[in-house]
Amino acid sequence: MWGGRYTTGPAEIMEKINASIDFDKRMYAQDIEGSKAHCRMLVATGVITAEDGGKILTGLDQILAEIEAGQFTFRRSLEDIHMNVEARLTEIIGPAAGRLHTARSRNDQVALDVRLWVRDAADRADIQIADLQSALVSRAEEYADAVMPGFTHLQTAQPVTFGHHLMAYVEMFGRDRGRFQDARRRMNESPLGGAALAGTSFPIDRHMTAKDLGFDRPMGNSMDAVADRDFALEYLAAASILATHLSRLAEEIVIWCSAQFRFIRLTDAFSTGSSIMPQKRNPDAAELVRGKAGRVIGALNTLLIVMKGLPMTYGKDMQEDKEPVFMVRDTLDLCISAMTGMVRDLTANRQAMRDATLPGFATATDLADWLVQNLNIPFREAHHITGHMVKLAEDNGVDLSELSLEQMHEVEPRITQEVFEVLGIDNSVRSRVSYGGTAPARVLEQAKLWKERLG
Amino acid sequence: MWGGRYTTGPAEIMEKINASIDFDKRMYAQDIEGSKAHCRMLVATGVITAEDGGKILTGLDQILAEIEAGQFTFRRSLEDIHMNVEARLTEIIGPAAGRLHTARSRNDQVALDVRLWVRDAADRADIQIADLQSALVSRAEEYADAVMPGFTHLQTAQPVTFGHHLMAYVEMFGRDRGRFQDARRRMNESPLGGAALAGTSFPIDRHMTAKDLGFDRPMGNSMDAVADRDFALEYLAAASILATHLSRLAEEIVIWCSAQFRFIRLTDAFSTGSSIMPQKRNPDAAELVRGKAGRVIGALNTLLIVMKGLPMTYGKDMQEDKEPVFMVRDTLDLCISAMTGMVRDLTANRQAMRDATLPGFATATDLADWLVQNLNIPFREAHHITGHMVKLAEDNGVDLSELSLEQMHEVEPRITQEVFEVLGIDNSVRSRVSYGGTAPARVLEQAKLWKERLG
Amino acid sequence: MWGGRYTTGPAEIMEKINASIDFDKRMYAQDIEGSKAHCRMLVATGVITAEDGGKILTGLDQILAEIEAGQFTFRRSLEDIHMNVEARLTEIIGPAAGRLHTARSRNDQVALDVRLWVRDAADRADIQIADLQSALVSRAEEYADAVMPGFTHLQTAQPVTFGHHLMAYVEMFGRDRGRFQDARRRMNESPLGGAALAGTSFPIDRHMTAKDLGFDRPMGNSMDAVADRDFALEYLAAASILATHLSRLAEEIVIWCSAQFRFIRLTDAFSTGSSIMPQKRNPDAAELVRGKAGRVIGALNTLLIVMKGLPMTYGKDMQEDKEPVFMVRDTLDLCISAMTGMVRDLTANRQAMRDATLPGFATATDLADWLVQNLNIPFREAHHITGHMVKLAEDNGVDLSELSLEQMHEVEPRITQEVFEVLGIDNSVRSRVSYGGTAPARVLEQAKLWKERLG
Amino acid sequence: MWGGRYTTGPAEIMEKINASIDFDKRMYAQDIEGSKAHCRMLVATGVITAEDGGKILTGLDQILAEIEAGQFTFRRSLEDIHMNVEARLTEIIGPAAGRLHTARSRNDQVALDVRLWVRDAADRADIQIADLQSALVSRAEEYADAVMPGFTHLQTAQPVTFGHHLMAYVEMFGRDRGRFQDARRRMNESPLGGAALAGTSFPIDRHMTAKDLGFDRPMGNSMDAVADRDFALEYLAAASILATHLSRLAEEIVIWCSAQFRFIRLTDAFSTGSSIMPQKRNPDAAELVRGKAGRVIGALNTLLIVMKGLPMTYGKDMQEDKEPVFMVRDTLDLCISAMTGMVRDLTANRQAMRDATLPGFATATDLADWLVQNLNIPFREAHHITGHMVKLAEDNGVDLSELSLEQMHEVEPRITQEVFEVLGIDNSVRSRVSYGGTAPARVLEQAKLWKERLG
Repeated sequence: MWGGRYTTGPAEIMEKINASIDFDKRMYAQDIEGSKAHCRMLVATGVITAEDGGKILTGLDQILAEIEAGQFTFRRSLEDIHMNVEARLTEIIGPAAGRLHTARSRNDQVALDVRLWVRDAADRADIQIADLQSALVSRAEEYADAVMPGFTHLQTAQPVTFGHHLMAYVEMFGRDRGRFQDARRRMNESPLGGAALAGTSFPIDRHMTAKDLGFDRPMGNSMDAVADRDFALEYLAAASILATHLSRLAEEIVIWCSAQFRFIRLTDAFSTGSSIMPQKRNPDAAELVRGKAGRVIGALNTLLIVMKGLPMTYGKDMQEDKEPVFMVRDTLDLCISAMTGMVRDLTANRQAMRDATLPGFATATDLADWLVQNLNIPFREAHHITGHMVKLAEDNGVDLSELSLEQMHEVEPRITQEVFEVLGIDNSVRSRVSYGGTAPARVLEQAKLWKERLG
Repeated sequence: MWGGRYTTGPAEIMEKINASIDFDKRMYAQDIEGSKAHCRMLVATGVITAEDGGKILTGLDQILAEIEAGQFTFRRSLEDIHMNVEARLTEIIGPAAGRLHTARSRNDQVALDVRLWVRDAADRADIQIADLQSALVSRAEEYADAVMPGFTHLQTAQPVTFGHHLMAYVEMFGRDRGRFQDARRRMNESPLGGAALAGTSFPIDRHMTAKDLGFDRPMGNSMDAVADRDFALEYLAAASILATHLSRLAEEIVIWCSAQFRFIRLTDAFSTGSSIMPQKRNPDAAELVRGKAGRVIGALNTLLIVMKGLPMTYGKDMQEDKEPVFMVRDTLDLCISAMTGMVRDLTANRQAMRDATLPGFATATDLADWLVQNLNIPFREAHHITGHMVKLAEDNGVDLSELSLEQMHEVEPRITQEVFEVLGIDNSVRSRVSYGGTAPARVLEQAKLWKERLG
Repeated sequence: MWGGRYTTGPAEIMEKINASIDFDKRMYAQDIEGSKAHCRMLVATGVITAEDGGKILTGLDQILAEIEAGQFTFRRSLEDIHMNVEARLTEIIGPAAGRLHTARSRNDQVALDVRLWVRDAADRADIQIADLQSALVSRAEEYADAVMPGFTHLQTAQPVTFGHHLMAYVEMFGRDRGRFQDARRRMNESPLGGAALAGTSFPIDRHMTAKDLGFDRPMGNSMDAVADRDFALEYLAAASILATHLSRLAEEIVIWCSAQFRFIRLTDAFSTGSSIMPQKRNPDAAELVRGKAGRVIGALNTLLIVMKGLPMTYGKDMQEDKEPVFMVRDTLDLCISAMTGMVRDLTANRQAMRDATLPGFATATDLADWLVQNLNIPFREAHHITGHMVKLAEDNGVDLSELSLEQMHEVEPRITQEVFEVLGIDNSVRSRVSYGGTAPARVLEQAKLWKERLG
Repeated sequence: MWGGRYTTGPAEIMEKINASIDFDKRMYAQDIEGSKAHCRMLVATGVITAEDGGKILTGLDQILAEIEAGQFTFRRSLEDIHMNVEARLTEIIGPAAGRLHTARSRNDQVALDVRLWVRDAADRADIQIADLQSALVSRAEEYADAVMPGFTHLQTAQPVTFGHHLMAYVEMFGRDRGRFQDARRRMNESPLGGAALAGTSFPIDRHMTAKDLGFDRPMGNSMDAVADRDFALEYLAAASILATHLSRLAEEIVIWCSAQFRFIRLTDAFSTGSSIMPQKRNPDAAELVRGKAGRVIGALNTLLIVMKGLPMTYGKDMQEDKEPVFMVRDTLDLCISAMTGMVRDLTANRQAMRDATLPGFATATDLADWLVQNLNIPFREAHHITGHMVKLAEDNGVDLSELSLEQMHEVEPRITQEVFEVLGIDNSVRSRVSYGGTAPARVLEQAKLWKERLG
């Protein structure tokens, strides 16, 4: 395979550790697409004849068909997808196949294949996340006025609506899409023509192949073209941040499904049972989405470690780029789909959510704000007064709204009957009308805006 | 500090683990800048009086001056920068200070402060990298025709020029800047006004504070505003990819400085000695740049782990966002500056580089290409013939260009005298004129283009 | 500092990136301890005179006293702790100071210092964890019969006791201690005498210094002695696994403190409030312990990355070993102490825990087991029958124990009145008497055993 | 599968994300081994009849045979290996199969299976590393006197021998084995009998199954038994440290194979060529070993992230434990074998190594030591004098040993002719006789000791 210089073959363990065909065959479509573009350009620039070019293109199409029909035999002795395709091409069209690799190296070829593959993966993530956002926006509209405790530190903070809570994730996932789109734009330069590392003396046209393959332009430095794996790193980084978002929502689903919270219920379609405890309804999918964030972050970490400190240009270490991106694409596929499924599947328990706002003095801030707005007390002092009021209520085992005006006067004599208006959960929620606030009108406003964005 | 509900103070270990003032005081400027914007808006919307607002602004300016003069006493019992500033403000202006926190929470305040800080850090990275790129472009022009072995697998592959090699890093660092710029653009939304998590009932104007602080717009969801740390993650991700690039160049500097390579020499200004071996000239700065990639990647990993699986909205875990970003900014500062210094400091050993191209049959590809171009042999076959030629040369202990035509004819009888023209290093390099190739003219072309971009 | 070969000093950025004194001064005690042992050995082997040795030892003691009294001026221009100490020694005792570094290099010196430091850190972790275990065992005894829902997937699985739950952590932390002890034992070999990397021609006695410093033996290979940082990696690995354990308990504390669970309550000493919501009681310490696992894992990752792919022997990258281990020691200190504090501080709400066992059909397995044991039904079939029974109860809105015998007979006619005995929570718990099971007697048995182990 | 409570099946994506059979079938042998031990114990304790037990054992043996013969159909709808085996058992032996799961849950079953699998993996690593050590010791003996430059910072420090260099790795790998052995010992406790999480009311004998399966004892807490994945973490941690060692040697092989170093040569069996450059001899296996450290560290990171913050006891996130350990075992298999192969395959170029010691003033320390030992100059001063001498030699373009006595006298007039004896490379190496030093006699001593240890 490596020409006439080698006298003996590789050791068995060498062949085993070196071969990548077991995983890089996943890039067969990209490999063939890239080879066809290269071939067309070689013909257009006169490097090979139209006749040879025609044979090559036909042969490559046949190979593509064979692979997709499951009729192609991948051979480990041929190391990788590139050599497997070329060897088969030789079988089909004879020596003309040997002209395809003119002015090209596996170094720029593999850089091209992986890049095309990751570009697809980024596009796919973008589309899938948009679907998840649509699911969230729909449920947010449905629950725009469903009050629930808003938590900080998993302690009741202030009442919010479930719709508002879901819309927070729409924002997060919106940024995730921005990251995949930016990564896509930045990676959209063609490495083809970088050849081994130095470029080539053949009169190739890199702009032609770049355009043919949907790239914005050829990369400006041939060494960078074969040595760069930024695009994979950036894809994995975007995936990792996305995975943390998914894991946060997953954690909440797990908590919300607990018997203690009962905020939501998943149907049988998204619940699993136990081999020993017949009563169980486990939110396994949510736990898996949460757990799989680990492998996504691990994959990013892996490739950063692989690339760290590698001298230029191509090193075989870089073969370790593929499995992490393949695995992460599959993982995102599963996790985004499962999350979208759960969002569409869940039923919120409005009553349980509302009941949960009662303990925890969720409207204490409303009381403090009332003191500021009606008694002109500086906020810090109002905060202090309210603290005493909470303690009073707590000691009496009641909620703030259940304190009598007399009891309140022990703490602050200027309080009037009007205060009770802001101590109700619904009033509290409705009052939060600042831009981006939890007032149902605000939530619906944002939901509408996002529906337009999502088309 | 937390109002009237608490009867006893924190345990000693509680205070110790909880306090963030030791590190978050670094955000004092951002904290005061944000408070001033908030104050101006409270006055403009009539939430507080102009008089109180004036006092607050004057007081905050005084505090800024005190901190910058080193005359401010930070107290751990006040937990964080926010409370330290507010407590001092109360000392200076009295109860009016208590009005500053109206319609605000530490949750949106800290989200704002960190965001402003990270925005500065991203801007700074962008500027520093541009300086490094300028240094590289200058050296690339100087060495546009200095031939050296181009390596794959640290084995001689094909001759390239040192200028071309350096320009590859200009491309990498260009993408790094793109990532920091994209992150900057995406993070440039204001969390202020998110309040605790639900927004507020005060008639605040979030668009006003957003504009005042240089943001493009307020964030669209108050819960997201206080729970999001994407911007820090994205900054760390961009920093990690940058760090791998720096580490690769650092690795090369270490290798190039070895007695075996001698491709470059650093002056005393960038060399260190030994406590026991008086002859040593160690490229410590390069090793540190390489090693410090570890801590940057570690910091990204840290914050991804912290954020994974956190339920909404703010959790104290998120306090762990600051030290990683602070450390990474300092690390990038050091590493980019040190790398820029080394790039400007180094002297390339043109002779050693050229000599190094001789062993290793660096022009074997040129021979193969010659066979394709002149004898119309398919590349794959030409590759095979060249392999035999390399073996022949190796067995005779000579370079390809030192084989006689007779010897070559043993392998391929159609070879002519003209072949020797492409076996010379300079001819080889000059021939690689494809776009982005290593031909000196191409390198100078790219250098010129980058100089224009860098302004 | 590096002898007579250097003509100019370092660049400013070089000095800045290179100096380690800002952090490695933390090892002053280890550095001086190691130097004293080295000095005593040099005297014993006749390499230096007793007189010079005496001066050196006296000088070193003075330096130790100066540092501990805060009267020592660390200078960045002297790079590190080793050079700072030696320079001061020269000031104090004159040229004899120059004899201390005979047969030693900073390479083995720093390897020694860090190793001694990490050995202390491992010992400290072991002691602190033992204290945490004692706290847990005490609380476990106290709550050996306090029933609570045992969870899998955060869904009620089977009733357990709170004591049993706490004892699970005693086991985990026991393994953590084993890891620190094993690491300690493995690292307890002396690198001193490895010199720069090759050993030395001076007639030193490495066994003597090893013994003097409490090591089991000198390391067997001088290159390994200066190049190895396994001991730091293993310490960080043990710390990371410990941190996951701490984070799990921390997560549970956060969940248990929620208004929805109310399983435990922390006093004011371990709760924090809010700057805007006066009612809040946040379990900040638990969240910080959970979050700080991120930085511990990040530190392990950092050092693994630093060490990966480093050629032998010492590289400056290895200077990056110190800050991670220093930080992790401090973090473990905080986290273990805070967790111990919380364990001692918490009050379990027995009633809330018991009440929580009622929904969720926690005794379904007991029913299935009853069917197996009394009706000789294969378990898999019994499991199926119980599933139907759960559905029946769920449809009727009652617990299993609230179904009538008639209702049960619809599903399985052979069931008898005796079944109700196993459907009670207390009976269920008491029945789990298998070794290591949750029956209170079993819990107390294990608690007793651990009290003996903990001494 | 989960009993009678479920009315509809899982969503398609739910089944897809939930099923583990695609990877956990690798544990079939462990699953069957564990089930057989459980069955024997159920018979011995009278929980099931000897007749049923006999059928179950026979059935399990048949299933094992079917799987090993490739005649077993794994079904994804049956989720995992446990259910696939049990379902097949039911087909073979009928309802008695339903008795196997008595007093057991998938929670303790899977904990057992993974633990048995990891125990095997740890044992295998131990054996493989021992083989690598043997290979290293053999080569070390062969090259005990082959001088080469010892490097720090990749700069020539002092001459060492290649044998000494290789023995450093023997030490590192020795510690690696210690870590696997310690992990093995710590994990060698049986989780079986923990049941779902609480233990069981059946009169099982956990000590019996523990002994039957080669464990030292049953685990002491049933909740810990099902919730613990320390053993996998510790295995991955040991693997990660090992991987850094392998990566260091791999990096050196890559460097040593470069045309600039030429310290070693790998045969064709461990070299690969290029698709475009016919002359290439790439050390791909070494690069892969170096790169694959990334995935091992990534796997450790992954599982630490998965386990962090998980509430007790079993969560589905923990299903993410398998793929990392499976992948790491396979990776270690490849990497250790490939490294052993390379160590056995390589030929050191004694002449090139010796020649490389000449530039770089490798014996400068010997000169300094000579000044100390013969002129009684304090080391620090001797170091300074030597520095001047190096500068003098450098300025004259000669090695230290090529300076004339007169030239030396310009720097230090007391130097005598005897100095030249220590300036020779061989004398230098032979002089380093301190314990663990590079003197050939010392190297052979250590090699002998290790050969005895390795048996």
